[in-house]
Amino acid sequence: MSESTSFHMTPDEFRTFGYAVIDWIADYQQRVESLPVMSQVQPGDIRAMLPAHPPAHGEAFADILADIDRVILPGVTHWQSPNFFAYFPANASGPAILGDLLSSGLGVQGMLWLTSPACTEVETHMLDWLVEMLALPEKFMSTSTGGGVIQDSASSATLTALLAARERATNFTVNRSGGTGKLVAYATSQTHSSLEKAMMIAGLGRQNLRLIDVDATFAMRPDALADQIARDRADGLTPIFVCATVGTTSSNAIDPLPAIGEICQRERLWLHVDAAMAGTAALCPEFRWIHAGLEHADSYCFNPHKWMFTNFDCDAFFVADRKALIDTLSILPEYLRNEATKTGAVIDYRDWQIPLGRRFRALKLWFVIRHYGVEGLQFHVRQHVQMAQQFAEWVRASDDFELAAPVPLNLVCFRHKGGDAINQQIMDRINRSGDLFFTHTRLDGKLTLRMSIGQTHTQMEHVQRAWTRIQEETRKLVQGQAARIQN
Amino acid sequence: MSESTSFHMTPDEFRTFGYAVIDWIADYQQRVESLPVMSQVQPGDIRAMLPAHPPAHGEAFADILADIDRVILPGVTHWQSPNFFAYFPANASGPAILGDLLSSGLGVQGMLWLTSPACTEVETHMLDWLVEMLALPEKFMSTSTGGGVIQDSASSATLTALLAARERATNFTVNRSGGTGKLVAYATSQTHSSLEKAMMIAGLGRQNLRLIDVDATFAMRPDALADQIARDRADGLTPIFVCATVGTTSSNAIDPLPAIGEICQRERLWLHVDAAMAGTAALCPEFRWIHAGLEHADSYCFNPHKWMFTNFDCDAFFVADRKALIDTLSILPEYLRNEATKTGAVIDYRDWQIPLGRRFRALKLWFVIRHYGVEGLQFHVRQHVQMAQQFAEWVRASDDFELAAPVPLNLVCFRHKGGDAINQQIMDRINRSGDLFFTHTRLDGKLTLRMSIGQTHTQMEHVQRAWTRIQEETRKLVQGQAARIQN
Repeated sequence: MSESTSFHMTPDEFRTFGYAVIDWIADYQQRVESLPVMSQVQPGDIRAMLPAHPPAHGEAFADILADIDRVILPGVTHWQSPNFFAYFPANASGPAILGDLLSSGLGVQGMLWLTSPACTEVETHMLDWLVEMLALPEKFMSTSTGGGVIQDSASSATLTALLAARERATNFTVNRSGGTGKLVAYATSQTHSSLEKAMMIAGLGRQNLRLIDVDATFAMRPDALADQIARDRADGLTPIFVCATVGTTSSNAIDPLPAIGEICQRERLWLHVDAAMAGTAALCPEFRWIHAGLEHADSYCFNPHKWMFTNFDCDAFFVADRKALIDTLSILPEYLRNEATKTGAVIDYRDWQIPLGRRFRALKLWFVIRHYGVEGLQFHVRQHVQMAQQFAEWVRASDDFELAAPVPLNLVCFRHKGGDAINQQIMDRINRSGDLFFTHTRLDGKLTLRMSIGQTHTQMEHVQRAWTRIQEETRKLVQGQAARIQN
Repeated sequence: MSESTSFHMTPDEFRTFGYAVIDWIADYQQRVESLPVMSQVQPGDIRAMLPAHPPAHGEAFADILADIDRVILPGVTHWQSPNFFAYFPANASGPAILGDLLSSGLGVQGMLWLTSPACTEVETHMLDWLVEMLALPEKFMSTSTGGGVIQDSASSATLTALLAARERATNFTVNRSGGTGKLVAYATSQTHSSLEKAMMIAGLGRQNLRLIDVDATFAMRPDALADQIARDRADGLTPIFVCATVGTTSSNAIDPLPAIGEICQRERLWLHVDAAMAGTAALCPEFRWIHAGLEHADSYCFNPHKWMFTNFDCDAFFVADRKALIDTLSILPEYLRNEATKTGAVIDYRDWQIPLGRRFRALKLWFVIRHYGVEGLQFHVRQHVQMAQQFAEWVRASDDFELAAPVPLNLVCFRHKGGDAINQQIMDRINRSGDLFFTHTRLDGKLTLRMSIGQTHTQMEHVQRAWTRIQEETRKLVQGQAARIQN
């Protein structure tokens, strides 16, 4: 092969194939509602369609794209279907996808300010905008003592906060010479599992995570927290960290930040507030009560990639004292030294996160905020909350179903009064039908169904159909049982 | 606003705006060579162009896109320019960008097999393909005891490997009850800084990272490693982990895996091999010698997002014993339980990584491998190596410059013989000119220039021009100094 040989896609080919991919996605957006929401394949089905060996020679792009329909689609659970009510939303949108596409096209590394100043500065600016949009405490602004950064996920935000807490509490001793196994963190049984994982990763040990009792709304009991801290101190342990949740994964429970915050302040513990899904609600003034007490927090995160129309990954993580974070994670090898970093006039985001490399994720956030405007984001978030409230009304009015937890925002936890078995059957049968997809949790020891409402294109008609479908499947099940008993 | 109000981008608008973004990127690919490689802005310049407050109302997409040229481009350091020779390559390509676009469009979460089976199965399959393409040890195949997973970066791969090593060595004691500060890891001064960061994150302490002496090629001295392990054991410490590098960031030094591997086997230490950039070379049989001894490794990673035409993030991380990894990172809360996971018939990649959430990154890898074919990837990697070898020849033939390290592959470390000051000036002046962008390191205490050759579209003409430019700038500097001395 001569030196002028090239296997690269030319810009003109990129244009042609790029249009085709854009068309594919636009078509997908139009038909996703008609596809079975939960993938119906069995383990191994998708792999069985892939060639055992990599291709020796390049293939035509049309053949590659055709395989998205043939091979991939059957194996996709459609998170972008308006009938997706499982787990939590991961609601993408046109402007987010296109902002992310530009990020891929520019292909910059944002590990240092110098390696692409715009990547850092737009990110800092967007995170400041978010402070204003959600009316978060001023101290989280970059113009104050703190600042924001995009993390891949709330899991990583929690880990990062825990590390900063660990180092602040030990005067950087663990960073220097390793852990002691005597540092304690606090949460509840309803806190996201990523905290237990973070305790393991950070070398603190999951035994040193105390699960504080919750009240009837599944929110942390501050009195129980204070008691446990006192017991641990009496045992010679060092309390360092509390993770409070605004909107737990299970049931959207909201830990009482004012009381927890006061305890943390008194006891000098790092307070991290995880509002992964629910935080977005604070776009609307009427929902900002969820953040009451947030002024006590040392760090906070929410995920625009859950409920703010921004595709994964985009967790917005804020700290009140950026120095504590940077001192915890900073490493400066020779090959990354440069004048801008040396002067301290710039942010180098590699010191705000676990990995070194980072892509230009702020672009998609910028596109989303500008496309919708604050007004547009508020409108759709309000709609989602209204739909969930309506669904909760239907459950309340039903003889057979009951609410299993309060419904502060867009998640409804409910169950058939007939016990775990029938709830499991209702869920499994509907999910297998592909009509909609919803998942479960366990509250008060009982299997509980969850309707998580927040997909971009979910409208009242989808929620109405879901409720009809659940009632219909329940009737069939109950009638089937009655028939079996009679026979 | 009525219930039918919507601020969303319609599929048809997405089509129109999507074409515009594709056009923008195609145009960018055509003109990137003409742009100053290193961004010329000062700290704060980009932020100053952004509105202080978020927009209350949505803006037209055309206005948003226009700001990519007006606001963003001046602040971009062009990693996709063929004149980019700094740090390491982050070489994107058309098929990668389009595969990633589809991932954004599908918007699936791949944390569990169930949440999109194709996301997991294509990833497992692609990583198996990579084992075959690089002729890696069989044990890294998913069909064996091990398997591969995509991590965001080599930093995260190193951290993940270190955690598994920590738990294997302590019978999961640290996960349970926290660290002891007596676990020791080994690397060299040339090992990537992410290992020191991982030691801190994992609660092991950076004092417990031993930097083993290197030989004249900046590679680890196995005898020094064995000695240090013996000393640490004598001191009552527990050696657990060695990170060997195939192609260090500074100078592409290659640690001797066969000897290191034997020591690790004898001493029962976890051997992690970091081949972040250089690993890609093993696509070509003639470069596979870099992996000699890899059969001793417990884990291995390389970054298709560096030198294999796949945009960030895409680090391919392999373990020989997937059980050790899963046992280290697994957490299973009620809301993630499902039948497929319970049967153990599937992989849930959340247990292979730090975060919980994950996007469909295997798509871009699949697109790249199929578009280029193994042949195409080999061809371009060979070209890059040839260019670097040619550049090294020019340096060797020069009276004023010298090589500072061996040049096994695509990175040339060199310096002007006149000392640090002139090297710093050559680099700063050329980088400020925007003609090309290259960076430095320090070897044997001396400032050393690095030509890292691996951008997708770099051709011999660009490398030739870079060398001409370096010589020209040097002449100017030397003449300027001579003139000042005469005056």
